[in-house]
Order: sequence, then structure tokens, then C-alpha cells
Amino acid sequence: MSGRDGKRGGAEASPAWPANLGGFRFLAGPCGIKEAAADLAWIIAEPAARCAAVFTTNRLQAAPVRLSRENLRRGGGRVRALVVNSGNANCATGAAGRRAAQATARSAAQLLACGREEILVASTGVIGVPLPWKRITAQLERWSRRADEDGAAAAAQAICTTDTRPKLAGASFRFGGRVYHVGGFAKGAGMIHPRMATMLGFLFTDAPLALPLLRRCLRQALAVSFHRITVDGDTSTNDMVALLAAAGKPLAPAAAAVFTPALAAVAASLARQIVCDGEGARRFVTITVEGARTAAEADRAARAIAHSPLVKTALAGADPNWGRILAAAGYSGARFDPERAEVQANGMVLYRRGRALPFDEGEAKRRLDVKEVEVRVRLGAGRARAWMWTCDLTEAYIHINASYRT
Amino acid sequence: MSGRDGKRGGAEASPAWPANLGGFRFLAGPCGIKEAAADLAWIIAEPAARCAAVFTTNRLQAAPVRLSRENLRRGGGRVRALVVNSGNANCATGAAGRRAAQATARSAAQLLACGREEILVASTGVIGVPLPWKRITAQLERWSRRADEDGAAAAAQAICTTDTRPKLAGASFRFGGRVYHVGGFAKGAGMIHPRMATMLGFLFTDAPLALPLLRRCLRQALAVSFHRITVDGDTSTNDMVALLAAAGKPLAPAAAAVFTPALAAVAASLARQIVCDGEGARRFVTITVEGARTAAEADRAARAIAHSPLVKTALAGADPNWGRILAAAGYSGARFDPERAEVQANGMVLYRRGRALPFDEGEAKRRLDVKEVEVRVRLGAGRARAWMWTCDLTEAYIHINASYRT
Repeated sequence: MSGRDGKRGGAEASPAWPANLGGFRFLAGPCGIKEAAADLAWIIAEPAARCAAVFTTNRLQAAPVRLSRENLRRGGGRVRALVVNSGNANCATGAAGRRAAQATARSAAQLLACGREEILVASTGVIGVPLPWKRITAQLERWSRRADEDGAAAAAQAICTTDTRPKLAGASFRFGGRVYHVGGFAKGAGMIHPRMATMLGFLFTDAPLALPLLRRCLRQALAVSFHRITVDGDTSTNDMVALLAAAGKPLAPAAAAVFTPALAAVAASLARQIVCDGEGARRFVTITVEGARTAAEADRAARAIAHSPLVKTALAGADPNWGRILAAAGYSGARFDPERAEVQANGMVLYRRGRALPFDEGEAKRRLDVKEVEVRVRLGAGRARAWMWTCDLTEAYIHINASYRT
Repeated sequence: MSGRDGKRGGAEASPAWPANLGGFRFLAGPCGIKEAAADLAWIIAEPAARCAAVFTTNRLQAAPVRLSRENLRRGGGRVRALVVNSGNANCATGAAGRRAAQATARSAAQLLACGREEILVASTGVIGVPLPWKRITAQLERWSRRADEDGAAAAAQAICTTDTRPKLAGASFRFGGRVYHVGGFAKGAGMIHPRMATMLGFLFTDAPLALPLLRRCLRQALAVSFHRITVDGDTSTNDMVALLAAAGKPLAPAAAAVFTPALAAVAASLARQIVCDGEGARRFVTITVEGARTAAEADRAARAIAHSPLVKTALAGADPNWGRILAAAGYSGARFDPERAEVQANGMVLYRRGRALPFDEGEAKRRLDVKEVEVRVRLGAGRARAWMWTCDLTEAYIHINASYRT
């Protein structure tokens, strides 16, 4: 199983929240950061869940990223709730930004009668603008008096910025005679007008799993999902993926064998949805590199091809431009002999062993002017392989990102 | 002197060939690779010159790159002539491509009665298409019967692909009571429709300089010129810069002190001209990073900012988007504390010590909607600095590169 199609180890995800995933409440709606749109989600684990999370590696890190990392460490991975807002990234906002994130966490902790370190916060939206945190805490207070909930789909909508649609996925697995569920939602990775935005992913399971296992499974699932996608290569200041598992006596470690494929399938489905909704994207592109000397070199070659603006613009034009593809592999640092390499696009062999192969231009255009394109590069230097998911680069991307802020 | 404006150590280049640079002949015109356009240049050193050169680091290397590197080594840096064609890159053309490059060199060597290893060849244009080398050798033969020459400007025109104008530069320097000259021409670094193209640079001096000194001076000049530019971050398969110095008793090593600044000024002028003529470019952008902990980190930060499609699209839109600039520095690997950093664009301070500074939107747009933009980032982490030259990323770039090959 390559994981390229959102399946792993037989697990398959559907692009919807799993109906029977219990243990979490979702409250979502507008708190007034955006004009007349949902911009706040409150996700409550009942009782407190175990949580593993990864955060952006950007040196410029938003206040919520810093606070959530710290809380997770101080609370030993015990999380009672997540507060997520869109419309404001609370990044590059100085000491006031730190205080805003802390005030949000403190308010949620008071309302849930838990420790502050059991609250994670996440933000996405404009950077450099003070976060109107009192609107958030006022909304949390109103919500705290409600018994019903809005559901994961409403939360998925509330965390969106320029995403054109919410992104949800679900899967299930069986262990010890019981059925467990994995659900998740995410928002787009394209850095976004007016300033920039963020990839946020939230994953949930009703399977009670021990923290070390949770961390390992998250790492493995990310390696075949969120870590495999690129829209424009820019890493946001607010990126975060959190995995919450229901409390309870931990399942045996053998559960990982069935949990990880389900988690990976959900994460991969969300990652695909993010790429498909990339700014200006018209095609979903899988770059597969085979025959590299090492896994690291396969990865570098796949990333170089997936990042190349020349490759991505050619794909936008349905141009079977193997020269750009091979050139990107050539500067990636992967060691290979171009005379032994091969390039395919949607099954057409374009280049093999040092030479261009003749192909019918009209036929090539028809085969590539489609929603989904697979580029396959065989380096002929070894047995390692890697893949990346990306999208084409269209004029709409430039239009979206060059528009002057209003 | 920072070299940012094409001046170094007091040397200044003009964007024209120096009138009195002797020792080289230039023949240029159409040989039939392109339809009805100049596509061949023959550059002859009389007598054989000393030559230092650098070639692309891409693993996919065109046949002329391989042959020229080999000839330079075998001939000990002695070069009688360069044959440069546009319209065909002779890349990914297998054994036939190697034979085509060799046949070209052999023909030039026979006509000049010199060793084959004294000929360098360079090609730029479509890749994967067999080079019609007989058209080249037939033209060399016709030219060999001519006494006059076409000049460097004609050669600069003949090596162009989608460049909208030829790029030439010249400077002079004084040593031991004599005036010497440096001249050069180049073609664009933007990878080009229909497949991709190449950065070629040819530098000449009438100062007889020893080979080791020539190599060192070239390396120093490149570090502040061609190595500082990026249009789209893609490294071509055919890149090459060659420096030819007239034969004769070598000048004293002290000449380097006056030669290097002149050479750097010429190379920097050409590099700037390449960026200004980048595909779809409307603005010339200097990215300066100061206050880094090490020179390598300053370099990485400057390159990350210069490569970021988000920064480049914001610049196209005259958007003072300091968030994208700081985020790019943040993921570059340079170590700094964003709370101590500062971002300026054309003299406006946009961000300082962890906070956005208020600025007038209309005024900002007026200041940035100009031909030349300087982005200055102070990391506040040390004393090292670096700069890069780049251009904005416009919809025209996508249009040029996504067009289907015709």
C-alpha cells in the first residue's frame, strides 16, 4: 500500500465525520472577529483526552502556538478543550498577543473548571493585528450555558479562512471485538490573502490509547499525509496538528497496528482535500519518485519537482514538459544518471534512458487536461521511493495573492 | 561598498560593450536552428586566451556542458573559440547529443587549425530535440572565409531565447600605467517556454592574467552577481559562465585588486539586466538581510525571502506584506528572535520588535508601486549580512510558462 490514494493497510477514509465518534463536543459560530461569518470553534473532551500534537517549525511562531506547546508539556498531554479562531492569527502581536492567548485559555479553563494547562488554543487569519480576545471569551461564556452542540461539521466550517469548503474525514477500525472511530477536520495550507494563513488539523478518536503510542502513531500518519503536501512551499507561523484520544484504560499496544492505518487514512484524506482546495488549483498532482539511492534522496527529488513553479505552471497548461520535471530532479541533490532515468505522466512515457519519446501532442493534452495527474519519475539508481501531493500553479494563485489588501 | 548597485570597490560598469577591448572576434547570425532569427555566435580569441569557467550543478547536464568542462580540463584552460547556439539546448539527447557537440567542436578546431580541446561549446533552447549540428558547422565554414566581424552586440543578440533584449556590460581599470577593459554579455535566467532555458554569461578582458588568478577573480565576481539572482529558483541544465583573458605575459598578482572590482561590476550589471528581463517581471527587488548570526544564515534568509512565491506576488501587488517576508525568514533556518527583528520596504518601517507599525495604506502603495523595491530585514541576532536580487511574480510569468507548446 503506497498511501497515495488515502488508503493504508486496508483502511479507507470517507470525506465525512464518523457518526458514532463519542467523547467530544463541538460548539461553533461567529464571535465577531470576522464580519458575519463563523470564526470560533470550541472543542471539548468529556472527560479530558490524551493529546499528541505537532507545531510549525517556523521561527516566527504565533502566540497560540507557543502557549499550546507549553500547556501540552505542562499538562503532560492531558487536554480538556481546544479553542480555535479564524480571522486573526494572533501572530507578531508582541506581549499583548501572549496575554490574549493566555486570557482565552484562562477563560475556557474557568468555564470547564479545569487547569489552564489543559486548554490548547489555535488561531488563523491576519497577522500583526491585535486579537480581540474579549469577543472570544464572551462567546465561550454564552456557549457554556448551552447543553446541545453544533457538531464537527460546524467546527470545520468555523476554522476556515479562504478555504472554499470545509474539510472533514472519518474512518473506523476494529480491535478487541469493538469498533472504534477516527474523525478529523482541517483547514487549508495555501498561505492566504490578505496576509497569510495556516494549516490546522484536528484528529479525534474514541479509542483510549496511551500517550507514547499516540505520539508515535501521529508521527507515522503525518509522514504519509500532511508532510506530503505542498501548495506553495511557504511554511506558516501558525501550523498545528493535534490528535486527541478519549480517556480510559489504554488499549493494548497491539492496537497501533489497526489504529495507525485508520488515522493515516483520515489524515491523508484531509491532506488531499487541502491540496484540491489550494489557491487557484485546478489539478491534483501526485509526484512519485522511484529508483532513488536512498529514501532521503527520493524525498528530496519528489519535493523539488512538487515545488518547482515551472513544473506546476506546465501542469496548469496540460504541457507534458518532462524536461522541467527531470531538471527539478536534477537540482534536488538526488544522485542519478539521467541516461538511466524515465519520466511518465498519466501513464505516457515521455522520456526514457537519455531520450525524449515521441508522443502525439493532442493526445498528450487530452490525457493531462484532467482533474488528477500522476507524474512518475524513475531515477534508475536504487530502490527507494517517495511521493508528494501538490497542485498546479495557475494565474488565479497570483491573482489571489497579489491583490492589494483592502 | 555593498555591490548592490553594480559598483564594487569604486568600479562602475556601463550597460554596453567597451569600445577598445581587443583580442577577440565575434561572428553572429542565423544558421537555421530558429526560424528566421540569429541563433549562432562564434567567439574567437586571437591568439588563444586563458579561460576560467563555472558550469551548472544540475545533475541533468547538457552535452555541451559536459564537453566544455572536459575540454577546459584537457586543454589546461587554453581556449581558442566558443561556439554558442540558441534555439536548441542539446540536452537529454543521448549519445547523438554528445556526438553533435563533439562534431561542432571538431569543425571549429579544423577551421582555426587548433586542438579540439581549445574549443568550448554552449547551447540554449528546447531540450530533448536532436541538435541540427550540420547547420552549425556549415555556418562556421562560411564564416571562416570572412575577414570582418559582427561584434559583441550581435553575439549577445544571437544567444537570446525569450529574452526581450540583449544584455551587455563593460568596464575598465588601470594597472601599471595602462588601461585595460572588461566586457561581457549574458542571456536570461528565467526558465523559458517552450521547455526551459538557461543562464549563459561570457566575460572577456584584454588584461593578460594568470589562470589561478583568473579562477579566483571569477569566483569572487560570481559571488556578488550571478550567484545572487533568482527568477524562479529553477536551476537550468545548461548554465555556464566563462571568463576569457587575452594571452600574453601575465600581469603581477597585484592586478587582482583592480581587476576583480571591474569584473564584478560587469557581472553584476549583467545579473541585474537578467533579473529586470525576468519572465513577467515588473519590479527589480533587492532583498537585504542584516544582523544575522552568520554569513551562511544571512544568505539562507535572503534566499528564502527572494524565493517565496508569496513574497513575490505581494510585491507584484505593491502590498507591504511584512508578515510574508518575516515568515520566509522564519522558515529559512536562520536563528533569530522575531521580537527583535525589523522589516522595511523602500524605507518604510513595517514591523519592529514584535509588532506591526501603523502606516498609511495609500502612501505604502505609492512607495511600492515602482520599478525598484528594496526589502530590508534586520534579524537583530548578530552582525552578518547578505543580499539577493529578484523580481516580482506576476500573472504574466504563469501565462508564459503555462502556455502549451506549439
